Amino acid sequence: MTRFKLTIEYDGGPYVGWQAQDNGASVQASLETAIEKFCDQRVRVYGAGRTDAGVHALGQVAHFDIETEHDAGTVRDGLNFHLKPGPIAVLDAVMVGEEFHARFSAIRRHYLYRIVPRRAPVTVRRGAVWNVHQNLDASAMQEAAQILIGKHDFTTFRASMCQAKSPVKTLDTLDVATSGDEIHVTTNALSFLHNQVRSIVGSLKLVGEGKWSAKDMREALEAVDRTRCGPVAPAFGLYLVSVDY
Amino acid sequence: MTRFKLTIEYDGGPYVGWQAQDNGASVQASLETAIEKFCDQRVRVYGAGRTDAGVHALGQVAHFDIETEHDAGTVRDGLNFHLKPGPIAVLDAVMVGEEFHARFSAIRRHYLYRIVPRRAPVTVRRGAVWNVHQNLDASAMQEAAQILIGKHDFTTFRASMCQAKSPVKTLDTLDVATSGDEIHVTTNALSFLHNQVRSIVGSLKLVGEGKWSAKDMREALEAVDRTRCGPVAPAFGLYLVSVDY
Repeated sequence: MTRFKLTIEYDGGPYVGWQAQDNGASVQASLETAIEKFCDQRVRVYGAGRTDAGVHALGQVAHFDIETEHDAGTVRDGLNFHLKPGPIAVLDAVMVGEEFHARFSAIRRHYLYRIVPRRAPVTVRRGAVWNVHQNLDASAMQEAAQILIGKHDFTTFRASMCQAKSPVKTLDTLDVATSGDEIHVTTNALSFLHNQVRSIVGSLKLVGEGKWSAKDMREALEAVDRTRCGPVAPAFGLYLVSVDY
Repeated sequence: MTRFKLTIEYDGGPYVGWQAQDNGASVQASLETAIEKFCDQRVRVYGAGRTDAGVHALGQVAHFDIETEHDAGTVRDGLNFHLKPGPIAVLDAVMVGEEFHARFSAIRRHYLYRIVPRRAPVTVRRGAVWNVHQNLDASAMQEAAQILIGKHDFTTFRASMCQAKSPVKTLDTLDVATSGDEIHVTTNALSFLHNQVRSIVGSLKLVGEGKWSAKDMREALEAVDRTRCGPVAPAFGLYLVSVDY
C-alpha cells in the first residue's frame, strides 16, 4: 500500500461540501470515484478540513492509500483526467509515509474570505466573493479583529450544530486588509469551529458598516452566546487556502 | 437630452460580444434593453471598445442620451436593477457634455490577459483565465514583447475579418509579469486591431514554452503576414480594463 498526499483546489459551488453526504455531490466522494476509475480500488479519502457547502479551496490537503506502481505525477494526472468536468483539480500529489494523516497531522489551517464592497453587482467574480452593497471601513474591521486573536471560548462564533468537544480555540492571526477593490480577511489556527470564520466575518462586516464598534465585538465574544453573533457570511466568499504540517 | 457616461463591468462568457448582433445576447443590446425598461426610451448605446464574444470588461466605457430628470446615481442603480440577472454591472454613471463620445473621445485603451500556466485544470477561475498546461518562461515572453512596442504594421497580429482601414497601430506598452500563480500580459494603445491582443498573447505563449525565440517574434512581425501568427489565445482570458479620455 502506498499513501498519497494530495493538494486540491476546488470551486465549492456545485458541492454539498467536502464530506460525502446523501443529499448531493461532495468533493470527497468525487475524489473517491476518480480514484476508483483510475485504479479500480474503492478507498476512503481523508481531508484536512471539512469545508461546508459552497466553500472553495485553493489548497485543501487529503490523503488515501492504494496499491499501485504509478508514480505521484501519474496519480495526479490520472485523477485530474477522471475528475473532469467537475471543478476539482489535484494540484500536487506526493507519496508520504503511513504516519502522515491529512487531518490529524495538520498543525495550521489558513483561510481567506473575499469581500467586494460596492453597490454594483459583481460579474466575473460571481460566486467567488461576497458582494456587500456598501462601503466598509477596513481599518475599523482590522482593529476589531485584534480582539479575537488568541485563545478564547468562541461559542458566539460557532454553529449550533458544531460537533467539536470544546468551544475553546486559539486564533493565531486574523487580518483585514484591502486588495484592489476587495477586502480580504485572512486567518490561521490549528483548527476552527464549524462556521467560525464565516461567523467572524459576518460580525466584522457589522463593524465595517458602522453598526458595531470594537467594543461590541468584545462584548459579543465575552457573552459566549451564539445569539450575539452577526449574520453569518455566505459560504461562497470563503477559501481554505493551505494547510501546514 | 442628457448624455450619460457609463463605466461597465461584465463577464463576457454568455454574450456574443459587445456589439448587438442577430445571433445571441450582446452587452450593448442588454444595456439598451435595461435603459428602455428604466426610462421607456429606446436609445443607442455607444461603447469604447467592441469586445469579442467571451471577452470580459472591468472598465468598458459607453455613452447614451436620454431625456430624464434622474441624477446619475439613480441611473446607475436603475440600470443595474434592470440588468439582473445578467453578469453586467454599471460601476459608475456620470453626466457628460455632448462633445463626449465613448469611442471617438478615447485616447487610450488598457487590456489585461490572464494566463494560468499549470498542468492541473483551473476551478474557481474557470472561464476567467487561460489555463496553459505547462510552465511558461515569463522573462522570455517579456523580452519578446518589447519587440512589438511602438508603431508597426500589425498585419501578422490582425484577424482576417478586421475592418480597420490601416494595419498600422502604435502599442504604447506591452508587459508580461507574474502575479501569484498567473502570468499577466498588459498592454495599452490608442486603439487595437481586431484580435490584436489575443494574437499577440498566442504568439507570446509560443515564446513562453520555448517554441519561438525573440527573433521568431521579430520575423513574424516583419513578415506582415497573418499566417505567421501563433494560434490566437482564447477570448475568456482577455479583459478590457479601462479607457482613458
